[in-house]
Amino acid sequence: MTESKLILDGARVAQAIKDELAGKVQGLTKRGITPCLVTILVGDDPASATYVRMKGNACKRLGIESRRVELDRETTTEQLLAAIRELNADPSVHGILLQHPVPHHIDERAAFEAIDLAKDVDGVTTLGFAQNAFGMAAYPSCTPAAIVAILDYYRIPIEGKHAVVVGRSPILGKPVSLMLLNRNATVTICHSKTQQLDRIVGAGDLVVAAVGKPKFIPGSWIKEGAVVLDAGYNPGNIGDVDYEACLERAGAITPVPAGVGPVTIAMLLKHTVDAAEKRTSSFES
Amino acid sequence: MTESKLILDGARVAQAIKDELAGKVQGLTKRGITPCLVTILVGDDPASATYVRMKGNACKRLGIESRRVELDRETTTEQLLAAIRELNADPSVHGILLQHPVPHHIDERAAFEAIDLAKDVDGVTTLGFAQNAFGMAAYPSCTPAAIVAILDYYRIPIEGKHAVVVGRSPILGKPVSLMLLNRNATVTICHSKTQQLDRIVGAGDLVVAAVGKPKFIPGSWIKEGAVVLDAGYNPGNIGDVDYEACLERAGAITPVPAGVGPVTIAMLLKHTVDAAEKRTSSFES
Repeated sequence: MTESKLILDGARVAQAIKDELAGKVQGLTKRGITPCLVTILVGDDPASATYVRMKGNACKRLGIESRRVELDRETTTEQLLAAIRELNADPSVHGILLQHPVPHHIDERAAFEAIDLAKDVDGVTTLGFAQNAFGMAAYPSCTPAAIVAILDYYRIPIEGKHAVVVGRSPILGKPVSLMLLNRNATVTICHSKTQQLDRIVGAGDLVVAAVGKPKFIPGSWIKEGAVVLDAGYNPGNIGDVDYEACLERAGAITPVPAGVGPVTIAMLLKHTVDAAEKRTSSFES
Repeated sequence: MTESKLILDGARVAQAIKDELAGKVQGLTKRGITPCLVTILVGDDPASATYVRMKGNACKRLGIESRRVELDRETTTEQLLAAIRELNADPSVHGILLQHPVPHHIDERAAFEAIDLAKDVDGVTTLGFAQNAFGMAAYPSCTPAAIVAILDYYRIPIEGKHAVVVGRSPILGKPVSLMLLNRNATVTICHSKTQQLDRIVGAGDLVVAAVGKPKFIPGSWIKEGAVVLDAGYNPGNIGDVDYEACLERAGAITPVPAGVGPVTIAMLLKHTVDAAEKRTSSFES
């Protein structure tokens, strides 16, 4: 039954992106430049710590320097902003990633905003968001970029398709909606206040799940043959869609794990390398 | 037949906004401050000249100073940028509106971008766009803001409704989609590559027409009882929807003229007065 289904293998897409990057990293290294990503982790959320470690390991395997800034959970917004400003000013740092979420007392938006646009490799600044919305961003948010990269890798058409995005966060639902729109999909954005969500998801040729709730989307909602992209990553490696049930109806689907996740990390590496190349060429010109 | 229909009277909504503004303008004038809007017109498009004149007249009636910068059609991007920078630096200017469209040889995006965010009363900068997308803009684009103001004036609920926006321009389709989304509508964004547009428009509880093509949306597409908001304003005072035919099926509808248009101008005045007030309070604090 499931043999005719296309499992969208994120590990494979990620590898293809990293293979392309390897040559670029070598080229930079020869010129004495090591691309450098700094991840900032505030507090001791174990899942966030795992993500940060995965990102660090992926950097190392590719010859990208990865630095971790770990701040305790009592850190104030002002202290976090000061740490970000220091990294903005450090010419050896090419990309800055503030691991989401930060503790509640911190103004996350202010912290995102403090990241220098040239180092905003996860597209979290409002200016980066808007440039992406207008199709001219240097670095769109990594998960939305990963979703588009998976579709492109498997040559799944976007233009003219009806994409239904479930979720509207500033770094996932909203930017992926605008990216798919800019690729000429018709886009419907759903959220917690959406009525008849089952019917709306059922109209989607492409369904992007970006809710952050385990198995939120049941198989019965999916149109026969639809392409399902699961950006959820809930405790226990569980996605936002009921994978087994959706697999029955979908034409193609990303698993969790090994779906959108690894491609998101590959995008982060790509943006960091691109930022290092840009910085270099702007020095040389 | 049409007596049970709600005609959304833009002139009435605009008047309510202007009535509120009148007091604010008086207050500012007493303190020696005259709110000032500068409109920039490049070239000699007669429709654009009419819009600019209408905006100027509306300013005058409310005691807002209106200045017109008229540049000939041979103006270069660099010359336009220089004119904008001069207005940015002029403390007597509170709002700057660059009339769209500019001649093709000009980089309109660069010109929009040059407008100081504090004077961007039509929400055309990318930063203004993103702040609006995140629900924190000082001045959202005037036409999208007008559409939301009309719905609010007539107490038409937005939350949980399915809004279908036809058009995806950076100053209309995209921002109105995000504003309706932030007001908890489920939003579908359509455009020239949308397939089965009739079916998709037919699902809309709220339909926003922002296409720029006369009578593009026929009555047969409209769901019985839907609310139709026509942001089109084509030569001959013709909207983007077939008004008579849509009126038959819609529960409420904006006419053209005297629908979205006058409210757009009222929003422009409101943003200009708000900008003058903000500037003043930032001087005093």
